[in-house]
Amino acid sequence: MSKTAPHVTPVPTQWVGPIEITGNMVEGRIEVPLATYETPLWPSTARGAGVSRHAGGIRCTLVDERMTRSIVLRAQDAANAHAAWQQIEARRDEIAAVVASTSRFARLVGLNRQIVGNLLYIRLECATGDASGHNMVTKAADAVIPWLLREFPQLEYGSISGNYCTDKKPSAVNGILGRGKYVVAEIEIPRRLLARMLRTTPEKMVQLNLEKNLIGGTIAGSLRSANAHFANMLLAFYLATGQDAANIIEGSQGFVHCEAREDSLYFSCTLPNLIVGSVGNGKGNPQVDEHLARIGCAEPRAPGDNARRLAGLCAATVLCGELSLMAAQTNPGELMRAHLELERG
Amino acid sequence: MSKTAPHVTPVPTQWVGPIEITGNMVEGRIEVPLATYETPLWPSTARGAGVSRHAGGIRCTLVDERMTRSIVLRAQDAANAHAAWQQIEARRDEIAAVVASTSRFARLVGLNRQIVGNLLYIRLECATGDASGHNMVTKAADAVIPWLLREFPQLEYGSISGNYCTDKKPSAVNGILGRGKYVVAEIEIPRRLLARMLRTTPEKMVQLNLEKNLIGGTIAGSLRSANAHFANMLLAFYLATGQDAANIIEGSQGFVHCEAREDSLYFSCTLPNLIVGSVGNGKGNPQVDEHLARIGCAEPRAPGDNARRLAGLCAATVLCGELSLMAAQTNPGELMRAHLELERG
Amino acid sequence: MSKTAPHVTPVPTQWVGPIEITGNMVEGRIEVPLATYETPLWPSTARGAGVSRHAGGIRCTLVDERMTRSIVLRAQDAANAHAAWQQIEARRDEIAAVVASTSRFARLVGLNRQIVGNLLYIRLECATGDASGHNMVTKAADAVIPWLLREFPQLEYGSISGNYCTDKKPSAVNGILGRGKYVVAEIEIPRRLLARMLRTTPEKMVQLNLEKNLIGGTIAGSLRSANAHFANMLLAFYLATGQDAANIIEGSQGFVHCEAREDSLYFSCTLPNLIVGSVGNGKGNPQVDEHLARIGCAEPRAPGDNARRLAGLCAATVLCGELSLMAAQTNPGELMRAHLELERG
Amino acid sequence: MSKTAPHVTPVPTQWVGPIEITGNMVEGRIEVPLATYETPLWPSTARGAGVSRHAGGIRCTLVDERMTRSIVLRAQDAANAHAAWQQIEARRDEIAAVVASTSRFARLVGLNRQIVGNLLYIRLECATGDASGHNMVTKAADAVIPWLLREFPQLEYGSISGNYCTDKKPSAVNGILGRGKYVVAEIEIPRRLLARMLRTTPEKMVQLNLEKNLIGGTIAGSLRSANAHFANMLLAFYLATGQDAANIIEGSQGFVHCEAREDSLYFSCTLPNLIVGSVGNGKGNPQVDEHLARIGCAEPRAPGDNARRLAGLCAATVLCGELSLMAAQTNPGELMRAHLELERG
Repeated sequence: MSKTAPHVTPVPTQWVGPIEITGNMVEGRIEVPLATYETPLWPSTARGAGVSRHAGGIRCTLVDERMTRSIVLRAQDAANAHAAWQQIEARRDEIAAVVASTSRFARLVGLNRQIVGNLLYIRLECATGDASGHNMVTKAADAVIPWLLREFPQLEYGSISGNYCTDKKPSAVNGILGRGKYVVAEIEIPRRLLARMLRTTPEKMVQLNLEKNLIGGTIAGSLRSANAHFANMLLAFYLATGQDAANIIEGSQGFVHCEAREDSLYFSCTLPNLIVGSVGNGKGNPQVDEHLARIGCAEPRAPGDNARRLAGLCAATVLCGELSLMAAQTNPGELMRAHLELERG
Repeated sequence: MSKTAPHVTPVPTQWVGPIEITGNMVEGRIEVPLATYETPLWPSTARGAGVSRHAGGIRCTLVDERMTRSIVLRAQDAANAHAAWQQIEARRDEIAAVVASTSRFARLVGLNRQIVGNLLYIRLECATGDASGHNMVTKAADAVIPWLLREFPQLEYGSISGNYCTDKKPSAVNGILGRGKYVVAEIEIPRRLLARMLRTTPEKMVQLNLEKNLIGGTIAGSLRSANAHFANMLLAFYLATGQDAANIIEGSQGFVHCEAREDSLYFSCTLPNLIVGSVGNGKGNPQVDEHLARIGCAEPRAPGDNARRLAGLCAATVLCGELSLMAAQTNPGELMRAHLELERG
Repeated sequence: MSKTAPHVTPVPTQWVGPIEITGNMVEGRIEVPLATYETPLWPSTARGAGVSRHAGGIRCTLVDERMTRSIVLRAQDAANAHAAWQQIEARRDEIAAVVASTSRFARLVGLNRQIVGNLLYIRLECATGDASGHNMVTKAADAVIPWLLREFPQLEYGSISGNYCTDKKPSAVNGILGRGKYVVAEIEIPRRLLARMLRTTPEKMVQLNLEKNLIGGTIAGSLRSANAHFANMLLAFYLATGQDAANIIEGSQGFVHCEAREDSLYFSCTLPNLIVGSVGNGKGNPQVDEHLARIGCAEPRAPGDNARRLAGLCAATVLCGELSLMAAQTNPGELMRAHLELERG
Repeated sequence: MSKTAPHVTPVPTQWVGPIEITGNMVEGRIEVPLATYETPLWPSTARGAGVSRHAGGIRCTLVDERMTRSIVLRAQDAANAHAAWQQIEARRDEIAAVVASTSRFARLVGLNRQIVGNLLYIRLECATGDASGHNMVTKAADAVIPWLLREFPQLEYGSISGNYCTDKKPSAVNGILGRGKYVVAEIEIPRRLLARMLRTTPEKMVQLNLEKNLIGGTIAGSLRSANAHFANMLLAFYLATGQDAANIIEGSQGFVHCEAREDSLYFSCTLPNLIVGSVGNGKGNPQVDEHLARIGCAEPRAPGDNARRLAGLCAATVLCGELSLMAAQTNPGELMRAHLELERG
């Protein structure tokens, strides 16, 4: 490695909001920090935040949470792999004890397997307190492997990570079995407000979501993904709050669902794989810590509560940015005009 | 938007290398800057860089390059959509002229379509000089749409982006039709060097790639992706060089392919969607500019050459980090031990 | 192999329709044969056919056609693979001549590549007259390989089929680059007719398509697929007309798109990978030949016309069955009731 | 519907084998019937069967079994959908009772959910005895829906099938959560036998599987699929034994995994979604019943045992055909030569 001392790359950051939020994760009017080189993201997200304040807030609902690591082990054949798995499943409590021994916070919440020929993939799923939990599950896996090899001599080491986890690669498994926080953010926007603040209608938004996010995504060969640009807001929020931003990959696999109701637009962003932590790598950075403190995610709370609050704020931020961009795209020429004005301005 | 002035989020950054590189994109021994909260990435990538210097270098080959935007238009029915498309294709030169009129650098290099019922999706593919080109293709699309609506009154506006582009979402289309730079980085490592520097063997690496990246990825329901952690290196390199790092999503969709040869390991990383630019958003930031200057990507060169050099450096960096992590995973316990030492150290 | 003489498995078959069809593939009122063990498919498809006759017909539009085979070749490294590819592309006319020499009907219409490390995958795309063309492209590939190995000694044989074709496996490549006939079938159904014949409304159909085919498919991790049961109609039509029915796999990857218009439902089925032939394996079977003759696909026509007619009939049949099942699912309990009534007889 | 009486389409059928099989599903030397228009499949599969008899048999292991149906329900918002789901999960026993009331054989074995905005998808997973179980789970779902709507008035009917099942469409959910029988078939073939009977080597087979099935499949944008032609054998076996052959779509999503061992080739076919039944639609057909009787799947056995035997036979057949085709593809020109000889012969 170079002898040069570490330095920093300064990423432009702005407070955006406040966003009005309700639900079971976070309540109130809160500004969020967004760190990005794509600075038009700030006014765009701010526009969505403005809508949140006039429409009674964005409701965020936590549906699930877990962090995962999959190991791969080799048997002589499938019969042996399957026999081993059946016993492993039956001895889940013992594995849970091994997991629990590696950290104050790690707790086994799920165990899944795949068998391919003689290969046995085991996916460990853990609650990880306020941490996003990557290191915690790796440490747990690192303890479970020798235990398994000792108890099941017919198995041999394949890898501590067998990509059935899966970390930072697009996949279906993370959405189906869960990885990170599964959050739905939703809002109901009166038609008149939508016209005034976003220059669009419920019908145009529904049609755009259908033709662009759902059908367009389908023909692109997208995988469990139907949105315009979740990734942009995730990246900016992750960087500002000291997250491992490479997890925007699974984070980007989420869905917009909207409906034209009586006299309003129902608009939701579902994020099945929001991976955030209020402690861990990236924290300790004074600027990051200041951000976390100001959004109320560094309070003395029950383990996990700060991380859940963080996830709620993140999901609401995603909704603000998604709503704004989609509204702009319903009108020919608006997206480019807005960009040019921002660059001039 | 909040009245607070923009500030910065400082992301820890380290020079790593030098990496030895050959091929048609960049030549020499060059250090690269990596900005990340996951600081164990530095020594890990540096380990791979060390191998590059002892094994005759990493060869980087540019296979293709283009940036894309897809629009969606509506016809009355499929017959009309198809008839319109046939004429559009025949009048490609006129569309190329519209594209060329929007920028000094944008040049139409491909045109693809999908028809779903009465919907016509057109994917504009452009060369974009030294820019990654997102804004350039949006601007081009913004000019092409009114031209199309004027020439084909049977079509109406759907969206300036129909997700068949596709931007920052996992997809198959980007790898198959191309988006960004398509780069292969490869190296041949003598068996003894592999043992000494990475404590592994060609056979163990080949087996791990098979069982983890290929089979593990397959059962995870991954999409055009077979690697361990391309995303980590991409994120760190993108942040340090002022890229729109949300493009790590398509960037992460790449492949490790390796072979045990006579007395060596052939190891390659294929990155079909490396999206980088040496000009554009993110640049102008003094620290970023210093990074770009030091890696030689701010020289007066023919348009596109600085961006290609940047892509070569990025691909080589990905290979270094991928090689190192995979080697660690071939040995039980090594990954966690390394992490703990780094955290202690 | 067993010494037993071949015998036959009789699959129950029924004529269904007539379906009314318009467009550029086939015109008229035509009955179609459906061979299936799932006999409730007959009345269900017949219900859709009835709608076609009252709503002015199903319009079928051919968007594209080709059959493909991908070979894989090995080079020393990516630089060599890429250099070879560039020359291969430049010498496309020579490859076209090799292809043309293998059959009266095979004609090269496209050439695509992927490079992964040192591996070069080449996808040959051919017009194949009235045949579905599997054997024709295999024969073409079998001639192209020795030519390539002779002209490019730096390449060695990998496989005559490298799965980038791809045959009978779900993929994205077939829909994006094309394989088989790309057909859109569509119909516009007045609201009153929809209520009377299918007991549903445009709004209910649009909502079901959104919630089931598009969103449901997305969360299932489907790939380029948004439909209810294209596969059922494809299987029955393929068996009755002597097709290689394993191609229902790519055939099943298609899309329903519908819209509630003024006072009607616009309903379309897009089938990007309809693989059918009016000659080749499966034909010569007297019952199959009788079916083909009766649907007018054994006429003396220009090469390809019988196959296109067959594809149009098939797409219209898919629409009939899809429309009927979807309508049933909009009403709680209707699907099961219909099944029970049919079974009671 | 046409007034014409039903008739039959005769599909050419041949007994192939015997295949030697061991494991927990079926034991012995058994011939299998294959109904197909692609008659070269017979000698090809027979070649694999011959290997099975000389190499100690194909071992088949059952890993899991279930049949599924997913319903979709609508709530006002995600908070309500999630609250309902939590209660539904807690009242699983009551749902199991509703399921059990609909059939002698249906038994609830799993319950999964996805929430997208205000939409709640519930995947019912059932044991279904000797039936493949499509109708059984539909009937179960048809009973569960009114129960749910009564107990949870905040929910309304969306669809009896929400495509999270998913039936006859390529998906990731079926492989990850299970649908049909999950079977691994495997064999170990001595090097000399491989050379003599299949003219190939362990190393060539491993390389082909890597370059074609795994890497080729990956770049094709395949989904949970790495094989050459599982679909062909599945189709022929399904037709001959009266299965709903449209289920070859999920069936085709399986994996070849092989290893070059000491002096042999380990070769396995993993089929996570083998959907077969020894009773139900398609049965009652005298020819089908004769086939089922002759392969021993119409015996008086404990419920489910005949279906499991059938699945084991099917998986072994798939292995025979896959092994033979892959071996042929390792040798340049062999595939085409074999085809031509068969057609001449």
